[in-house]
Amino acid sequence: MPSRSADDDPRLGDVSEGTVLRAILARTAPASHAILGPGDDAAVLATPSGSVVATTDTLVHGPDFRLAWSSGYDLGWKSAAVNLADIAAMGARPTGLLVALAVPRDMRLSFVEQLADGFRAACEALAPGCSVIGGDLTVSDVLTIAVTALGDLEGRSAVTRAGARAGDVVAVAGELGLAAHGLAVLFGRFRDGDTPIPVDATRLADGERAAVDAQLRPSPPIGLGGVAAMAGATAMMDISDGLALDAGRMASASAVTIDLSRATLGSDPQRALTGGEDHALLATFPPDVLPPGFRVIGVVRERTEAGLLCDGQPVDAAGWDPYRDWDAATG
Amino acid sequence: MPSRSADDDPRLGDVSEGTVLRAILARTAPASHAILGPGDDAAVLATPSGSVVATTDTLVHGPDFRLAWSSGYDLGWKSAAVNLADIAAMGARPTGLLVALAVPRDMRLSFVEQLADGFRAACEALAPGCSVIGGDLTVSDVLTIAVTALGDLEGRSAVTRAGARAGDVVAVAGELGLAAHGLAVLFGRFRDGDTPIPVDATRLADGERAAVDAQLRPSPPIGLGGVAAMAGATAMMDISDGLALDAGRMASASAVTIDLSRATLGSDPQRALTGGEDHALLATFPPDVLPPGFRVIGVVRERTEAGLLCDGQPVDAAGWDPYRDWDAATG
Repeated sequence: MPSRSADDDPRLGDVSEGTVLRAILARTAPASHAILGPGDDAAVLATPSGSVVATTDTLVHGPDFRLAWSSGYDLGWKSAAVNLADIAAMGARPTGLLVALAVPRDMRLSFVEQLADGFRAACEALAPGCSVIGGDLTVSDVLTIAVTALGDLEGRSAVTRAGARAGDVVAVAGELGLAAHGLAVLFGRFRDGDTPIPVDATRLADGERAAVDAQLRPSPPIGLGGVAAMAGATAMMDISDGLALDAGRMASASAVTIDLSRATLGSDPQRALTGGEDHALLATFPPDVLPPGFRVIGVVRERTEAGLLCDGQPVDAAGWDPYRDWDAATG
Repeated sequence: MPSRSADDDPRLGDVSEGTVLRAILARTAPASHAILGPGDDAAVLATPSGSVVATTDTLVHGPDFRLAWSSGYDLGWKSAAVNLADIAAMGARPTGLLVALAVPRDMRLSFVEQLADGFRAACEALAPGCSVIGGDLTVSDVLTIAVTALGDLEGRSAVTRAGARAGDVVAVAGELGLAAHGLAVLFGRFRDGDTPIPVDATRLADGERAAVDAQLRPSPPIGLGGVAAMAGATAMMDISDGLALDAGRMASASAVTIDLSRATLGSDPQRALTGGEDHALLATFPPDVLPPGFRVIGVVRERTEAGLLCDGQPVDAAGWDPYRDWDAATG
């Protein structure tokens, strides 16, 4: 993009809230499901099937991202994508986003514009027809992006994580461990001591570049949520905290045991089991059903003491816990 | 409440996310409009009338509150109330809240439990039937409470801020300037130098206590939003940034001029015009209509150069702007 002088790109502390909001709204797409879009006390979204699916997820500077690695565009994209994935994981179609931004006053207007571009691009790429229908802007010393996503079940029932039955197959759509690989590349190669430094793409092999992209701008298979529901998925969830932890949660909610097959977990099964932030869709299907886009990675068994097995052996279900795992670094 | 030893009240950094979430969910009411409540990737909320009203608003430690003045309960209550008011201002009934919390690791579990109690109490008092249907918990150095509220129009059309017509009466339900009076009391009487200190209620006259309560735990007239819509309100909004600024916004959106009557603005008209955070409902009605709970404060005229008048004279529409007005203090 053309470079922009600091005179053309004021800090947020030097402009009015209205100026910032106008810059954002100029960059969000028309809201195709909205009866009333941004600009009033609240938005109104059509819900033709008589219910709305709703979820919220927040990205916080420090535990969730580093500004040396993520652009505003990346952060807009990612904060949209992780919320869209939760809607898809219920078997629903995303229809609208509400974006609550808390932004330090010394950030540039162009950063907020990039955020808005990222929201729009992620919606267009991952969930066509979904767009930003409302939001809120406030000031904070810590950049915080809280997104609420809304969706429509199109007449179907929601697919919860509690419906897996013994005899079902366990299947996944999307990447396993790729985002964690990307995070390892960032922490291993793009820090000066403990300080994150910008990513130099010329220093990345092709596989590493895909991994870093998956970490910074994940592309979960949003459209496959509705496909799985229509095909008869008995349970579904998105894998945000790692396959082992999330499959264990599904097994507990469904009162079954999930037995994964290590051979199906790719070249680094351990990373596939423990790596978070891929936002792949984990689903169970009756044994004769497997919709396009999904691959089998295990089976559902009657509940035993261990809720999660891999090749018949118990797996320790560890994953990311922000209160335990964040080291208070930012950058 | 009984005092609790530090041993019984761990810091969030010393417990798992699951422990915190269970403590919150134990304190949120059953979700009466929810088809599926908290615990899955997303909640599902019934929308019998074919649309959903949605809004989001965030409270950030520093610009929006001081922990010396606000308890967890106060903050839960206020962050619910300000969002419920936006739903009411569309003429809708609030049906569900999603709560995204970003909380420092050194805060106590009891603080989060108080937040949850405040959310529940505000819903029960201000919007019976509405409850927390979902949320997100993450860590941040800055306590941030981002709430999304959803509501149902019950078959009515949304009442926007753009429908006021010349000849309508301008009316308000709720307080004008009381929350600002409370803020003035807090800044004037409960600081040690620049540092906020806890409120000693014995030092407050009755009127001051009501003002401080209005600032810390506002009780906007949520139920009157639907009443106004049913009565035929032509425009409506909640007054969050002060009557002058918000009435000016309504006048601009409706392409009319609003002429307020100073004699109707109480004992301190200037504070009523400029004080924010009351979340009263500002509405316009045809001249022969005034529903219970509303009082007339002006008339709508054909648009002139000035959008807002008071006794026929132009009013400077100033109000709160977080980027301009926050002095970076916390406490």
